[in-house]
Amino acid sequence: MLEELKKEVYEANMLLPKYGLVTFTWGNVSGIDREKGLFVIKPSGVDYNKLTPETMVVVDLDGKKVEGEYNPSSDTDTHAVLYNRFPNIGGVVHTHSSWATSWAQAGRDIPCYGTTHADYLYGSVPCVRNLTKEEIDEVYEKNTGILIADEYEKRGMDYVATPAVLCKNHGPFTWGKNAHEAVHNAVVLEEVAKMAARCEMINPQNKPAPQELQDKHYYRKHGANAYYGQNN
Amino acid sequence: MLEELKKEVYEANMLLPKYGLVTFTWGNVSGIDREKGLFVIKPSGVDYNKLTPETMVVVDLDGKKVEGEYNPSSDTDTHAVLYNRFPNIGGVVHTHSSWATSWAQAGRDIPCYGTTHADYLYGSVPCVRNLTKEEIDEVYEKNTGILIADEYEKRGMDYVATPAVLCKNHGPFTWGKNAHEAVHNAVVLEEVAKMAARCEMINPQNKPAPQELQDKHYYRKHGANAYYGQNN
Amino acid sequence: MLEELKKEVYEANMLLPKYGLVTFTWGNVSGIDREKGLFVIKPSGVDYNKLTPETMVVVDLDGKKVEGEYNPSSDTDTHAVLYNRFPNIGGVVHTHSSWATSWAQAGRDIPCYGTTHADYLYGSVPCVRNLTKEEIDEVYEKNTGILIADEYEKRGMDYVATPAVLCKNHGPFTWGKNAHEAVHNAVVLEEVAKMAARCEMINPQNKPAPQELQDKHYYRKHGANAYYGQNN
Amino acid sequence: MLEELKKEVYEANMLLPKYGLVTFTWGNVSGIDREKGLFVIKPSGVDYNKLTPETMVVVDLDGKKVEGEYNPSSDTDTHAVLYNRFPNIGGVVHTHSSWATSWAQAGRDIPCYGTTHADYLYGSVPCVRNLTKEEIDEVYEKNTGILIADEYEKRGMDYVATPAVLCKNHGPFTWGKNAHEAVHNAVVLEEVAKMAARCEMINPQNKPAPQELQDKHYYRKHGANAYYGQNN
Repeated sequence: MLEELKKEVYEANMLLPKYGLVTFTWGNVSGIDREKGLFVIKPSGVDYNKLTPETMVVVDLDGKKVEGEYNPSSDTDTHAVLYNRFPNIGGVVHTHSSWATSWAQAGRDIPCYGTTHADYLYGSVPCVRNLTKEEIDEVYEKNTGILIADEYEKRGMDYVATPAVLCKNHGPFTWGKNAHEAVHNAVVLEEVAKMAARCEMINPQNKPAPQELQDKHYYRKHGANAYYGQNN
Repeated sequence: MLEELKKEVYEANMLLPKYGLVTFTWGNVSGIDREKGLFVIKPSGVDYNKLTPETMVVVDLDGKKVEGEYNPSSDTDTHAVLYNRFPNIGGVVHTHSSWATSWAQAGRDIPCYGTTHADYLYGSVPCVRNLTKEEIDEVYEKNTGILIADEYEKRGMDYVATPAVLCKNHGPFTWGKNAHEAVHNAVVLEEVAKMAARCEMINPQNKPAPQELQDKHYYRKHGANAYYGQNN
Repeated sequence: MLEELKKEVYEANMLLPKYGLVTFTWGNVSGIDREKGLFVIKPSGVDYNKLTPETMVVVDLDGKKVEGEYNPSSDTDTHAVLYNRFPNIGGVVHTHSSWATSWAQAGRDIPCYGTTHADYLYGSVPCVRNLTKEEIDEVYEKNTGILIADEYEKRGMDYVATPAVLCKNHGPFTWGKNAHEAVHNAVVLEEVAKMAARCEMINPQNKPAPQELQDKHYYRKHGANAYYGQNN
Repeated sequence: MLEELKKEVYEANMLLPKYGLVTFTWGNVSGIDREKGLFVIKPSGVDYNKLTPETMVVVDLDGKKVEGEYNPSSDTDTHAVLYNRFPNIGGVVHTHSSWATSWAQAGRDIPCYGTTHADYLYGSVPCVRNLTKEEIDEVYEKNTGILIADEYEKRGMDYVATPAVLCKNHGPFTWGKNAHEAVHNAVVLEEVAKMAARCEMINPQNKPAPQELQDKHYYRKHGANAYYGQNN
């Protein structure tokens, strides 16, 4: 079942080592079939060079395995919550990519310091708080997803416009309209995280980019008046 | 038309990923035919591995497309202004290369801390201010070019001697006598930006190199008394 | 003798350059046959591209050569002490990998700032003190091993749960159930050391991850209730 | 003439890009035939991928070309002085390698923070002062060599024990018993410079390694009582 989606999710997973976003098995990509209400995700703890489309695991929106030889990623429940709460996304990525994880470990939002950031991610990339001991003990991975979605609501943020988040002392999740775009956003986030750290090193009193410049670049690439690329 | 120039500009564009200066499609190179008053530039948002000489776009010095299947780079108007205002340049490059962009995001000129910098770039690499909301709303890309050229005039700088600039909260532009030299200068700028940040980390009270050392190295490679290389 | 173990230790040694953990010959891996009371280790100062399984050296638990054409690693006596004092380990690695060595040179424990660390290494990675002049002059390499094992006792640490240590002004040692796992932990340590330094740069007042999050991640992967991967 | 030496120096030059020590043509290696009083050096400003053994230039100990199609490196006079003043060296390297150059731009000696440094370079790596305007105007490259050699005398340093120096606001020179060892030391210097900067970032109050540890490691590898490697 879902052979086409398995192939797509497999290929998206294989982009993580290609872009240098994972060490060993520290990452996972999923993609969803919204009509069937099922998503496909990387198996847990399996080496990237042993992955094939057939090893991908099919799960439902409660995170329960529907098909597959392997256990799904241990982060499956986080993906499931994100698909439930963010109805317009088609793919989710989790990595421990080095710079984004360093910001997560530092417990800080990534300010929008420039147009590289503004081209893809509207405003700051939020860093959500730690889960409490009770939230961890109850259902850690599920509560991680709930915390992310609640944070977007609390801040009044549009998850489509800012498809990247940091979990404090953990690492980043990104998403997109499909698995490939979610990986694309994971690459962007890592680059943006790197440059934000370095520009604070160069200028410790650094300020975010002016709002009008952020808006210009975001809307140059997104929405009805976009004129970047070939689709306009 | 301009088949030779298209090939040259295509090859110069392909050097950007080779030298690690671009992620995805975040960069563009152009080259000009001064006699015809036309320049050739990368198409907007097209993957580097899909580029061919034929995909390059020909535009005039108002930035209007003259030939080509694709839309030209969204930064075309900036290139056009630079060609108009800097009559002795033959190629222009824009990237979001990581260290140069970090300095741009930090909003600081790059001081000349050593001979690597002085060999290619005379004095500090200037960082121009943000455009105002009015300048952004009017013609963002064109005004970016105007701001750069005005800054060189205001500071009394020679654009041939310092072929690199940073746009605040955005990224670098470099130029040269042709597209290849412009890329060469983009590589130099990235290396110089990296070492400048690191030497400030090693010595936060760092001072620029003495003027006589800067002059020695710049004029060892440039002008009538140059003796570096094989052309003397 | 020990042909199978020599092959395994050879392969584990060859992973060091593959993972970018060594420059020139600055590292060594060993693996033990507990029944025979012998271990196999890299020869001293031999280039990685000249290593073969046959060049590996067999030594006893006093660090004396039992078989082999070459001198064993100059760090052999440290490995021997670790095998004697840590009865449940099967492999040991020493490198001068860049970030871990930077922490060792800085003389600091690596705090557990996130789940990447907590997934593999329980609590801080300890940095042991310098040996005294007397300890160096007596038997430097042996005393290095004794110092490490004593430190784990003094701190009441479980060497299986925290299979990585830093020697002040020197570099890291890691271990594991066999040579491959010891190399795996050396890769983890380097990544963790890198991100710890960077998150302190991003947030100089950074605090370790909450204990309950550290516990959650460590026990998600280790012990009776582990549910990461495919063996559960 | 000197065909064997030309081949050796060519190969040593080709190691610079292999080890990531040069951008474009920013480096040069030479090697000397002490009996003939001639040395062989890279031609000035020629791309590494156009070098062959035949393009190497033969010069005498006054830095005057004796044989060769190309101009010798613009730094030839510095090499010549070093060969004259340091009679026990057989090869010299100059690069603009990124971390060593960052320390040179910062104008600081590199303290010996650990055993990686102590294994190869005895004590701090010295950073020599800027040349005065008069010294630059007179004979810049020759005076650079004189300044280096004078500094070793003034500090009472052994150039064989510390085969690496930084020129303020410029970059490093290293040397060794032949061209290959000089390149080897250039690689060591770059790694040591990187880790020294990072350990100061991790611990801004960092102190050098204890003298007894520096001595232990240096003499473990050098002199009559060395026991590292296979030649003992």
